[in-house]
Amino acid sequence: MESLIKETEGGVTAAGGFKAASCAAGIKYQGRTDMAMVFSKSPCVSAGTFTSNVVKAACVKWDQKIVYSNDPVHAVVINSGIANACTGEEGFVACDKTAAAVEEALGVPKSSALVASTGVIGMQLPVDKLTGGVKMMAGSLSDTTEAGTAASKAIMTTDTVNKEIAVTFTCGGRKVTLGGMSKGSGMIHPNMCTMLAFLTTDVAISKDLLQKAVSEVVRDTFNMITVDGDTSTNDTLLCLSNAEAGNELIDSEGKDFDTFKEALLYVCTFLAKRMASDGEGATKLFEAKVINAKTKDDARTLSRAIVGSNLSKAAIFGCDANFGRFLCAMGYSGSEFDERDVELYFESEKGKLKVFDRGVPLDFDEDKALDIMKADAVTVFVNMNEGKESATAWGCDLTYDYVKINADYRS
Amino acid sequence: MESLIKETEGGVTAAGGFKAASCAAGIKYQGRTDMAMVFSKSPCVSAGTFTSNVVKAACVKWDQKIVYSNDPVHAVVINSGIANACTGEEGFVACDKTAAAVEEALGVPKSSALVASTGVIGMQLPVDKLTGGVKMMAGSLSDTTEAGTAASKAIMTTDTVNKEIAVTFTCGGRKVTLGGMSKGSGMIHPNMCTMLAFLTTDVAISKDLLQKAVSEVVRDTFNMITVDGDTSTNDTLLCLSNAEAGNELIDSEGKDFDTFKEALLYVCTFLAKRMASDGEGATKLFEAKVINAKTKDDARTLSRAIVGSNLSKAAIFGCDANFGRFLCAMGYSGSEFDERDVELYFESEKGKLKVFDRGVPLDFDEDKALDIMKADAVTVFVNMNEGKESATAWGCDLTYDYVKINADYRS
Repeated sequence: MESLIKETEGGVTAAGGFKAASCAAGIKYQGRTDMAMVFSKSPCVSAGTFTSNVVKAACVKWDQKIVYSNDPVHAVVINSGIANACTGEEGFVACDKTAAAVEEALGVPKSSALVASTGVIGMQLPVDKLTGGVKMMAGSLSDTTEAGTAASKAIMTTDTVNKEIAVTFTCGGRKVTLGGMSKGSGMIHPNMCTMLAFLTTDVAISKDLLQKAVSEVVRDTFNMITVDGDTSTNDTLLCLSNAEAGNELIDSEGKDFDTFKEALLYVCTFLAKRMASDGEGATKLFEAKVINAKTKDDARTLSRAIVGSNLSKAAIFGCDANFGRFLCAMGYSGSEFDERDVELYFESEKGKLKVFDRGVPLDFDEDKALDIMKADAVTVFVNMNEGKESATAWGCDLTYDYVKINADYRS
Repeated sequence: MESLIKETEGGVTAAGGFKAASCAAGIKYQGRTDMAMVFSKSPCVSAGTFTSNVVKAACVKWDQKIVYSNDPVHAVVINSGIANACTGEEGFVACDKTAAAVEEALGVPKSSALVASTGVIGMQLPVDKLTGGVKMMAGSLSDTTEAGTAASKAIMTTDTVNKEIAVTFTCGGRKVTLGGMSKGSGMIHPNMCTMLAFLTTDVAISKDLLQKAVSEVVRDTFNMITVDGDTSTNDTLLCLSNAEAGNELIDSEGKDFDTFKEALLYVCTFLAKRMASDGEGATKLFEAKVINAKTKDDARTLSRAIVGSNLSKAAIFGCDANFGRFLCAMGYSGSEFDERDVELYFESEKGKLKVFDRGVPLDFDEDKALDIMKADAVTVFVNMNEGKESATAWGCDLTYDYVKINADYRS
């Protein structure tokens, strides 16, 4: 059957009824935009996943309160430059004043405004600049593709490219659109979710099922990427649906729910891989595919351990087929297995090469290995031969530039 | 009371009855020594801790069998260059033949010869060179300080300095000596133990109590260091005691056992810190002291998370007092706490500076912070204000050279 999911133009403004705006509020960066807003006049059902870090940014706590309630949502306000984490009471006041500015400028309740921040931890937000930014953006909201793209650029920090996507599909005979944007380049080792991702859709769906779809999809997408093993204080994924597509409300599992979940998986996989390949300092996308593991958890744990190992990442950077490091990472992942079952391959657009066969290192062709590893995307493919479960994880290589970017991030 | 533990010359040959030798067997490196042997004619009681990695090198499995039995031990044979991990049956044969060479050359049972390897994973050892090396070394065993030092150099891989120490103390009126050497620079994130460490002592102690002392001390020393989060397949610590000091056998806990444990802690702390500060590419020792945590496990987990974070390590390299990264690492460590209880300081020989006070970021003096962070050893000091338990962890900064060393390790 032909896939019914089609890519389309744009990102957060692709779905019916969603507008976006951005501005240069001068929060920390100079000469670039640093605030974005997403808005729907129709009230939205919201779902979200948030960082598992016990040190949660003020904005994460603000959003959790709203997403976990039944309050309708109209807006998301995002800033880059300062994370509003480890900021005590003053941090919560900043969230409250930002939401109040949305209420004043757009006539929707304060409780319908979500907020998100990314940047330096342990620094206070300049509240006046933030509320000034909200006022400015409220006057320039637009449903154009350009407005969505501009928003996806305003939320970047050390990202080198913006990340957005939109797809259309059919639910109950109606055309539905789902779009999204994300940012994230360092401090990426999601647990519950990843950095910042914002999804908008005009599908009609109940809050419970929206959250169910989001939670399930995040587990196989944003939670399967890692850049540096550092789980941020600010990880937030928000998904808003305003029902403007006019499909019959999805309020039980079935064909329409499955279709929506498939579209969500498509969008989240795209955004997650874009984040991994744009990891700080990265020159390559580094993928680990683990098949035939005993359990799904084993497959996830093993694939994440491979792409998370500094030594594996440095070997990928150096195009060094030092496969022992990948087996070593699998070995300390916490998953139990017998190396005498394991087959390991390197794979890219240049071909596939087996280097380890059920406990025994192979005398492989180093030139062929080098050729495979020089590609822009390199996969370590592992057959555990112990069960039927598979998982894929994504990361990037560890480079001089990662160190450079992070040795003096604040300046 | 004055400490009764005194540092003395040498390492593994310091204790009575222990000899060492080393040689250039040409296993992988050219133009340098790459094998070492430690030998005691008197039979030794042995204790050890080994990697928790489920992918264990053949030599780790060989040693575990011996250390977990009651067989007396006479020798340890170590090689650098190739790790003998992920080598299947052929790897075990290499261990067996090495031990057989010890039996032939020195007239002690094969089952009394421990083996240890460090280097590239997934490559077979050249057995003939290994057994040739054993034969060569058997003829040049010596109890001199120089022989011990030479052994500590032969086991180095990417280490930039050798690591050895010896101390004397008194047990039951007798002078006892304890010495040791270790190696380790990358793939260091011990769990049960770290890279390779060999301790020799002439104390008379029962096997059970030797193991008890070793296990307890390793938990607070080698298990508290990390270089890159990668737990090796080869981590091994071995401690041999040959009773030549003539003290009354330590076969119950009490004053003598406590004295021995104190000496063991001294030696292991020294070797562990030397390994951390000589981490691959490191320019600094990075220490995290966590005090007043709820439980000992919390204190250990939090301090290890701080020194283990890539972002924290890069900030230490850049002398950037970006304290939010340390709080972030504590937050994802798995330990539960409230940031509103936490005080965080930077500390070195240049002074101590508070930067975060019970949930609130302080407006600290950046020049003073820079001055403190430029030192060769930098401590992040954290008061959790939640209990009475403390722990210290050691690591190093993340530098360009770490990436350089590991992007092309095999060549």
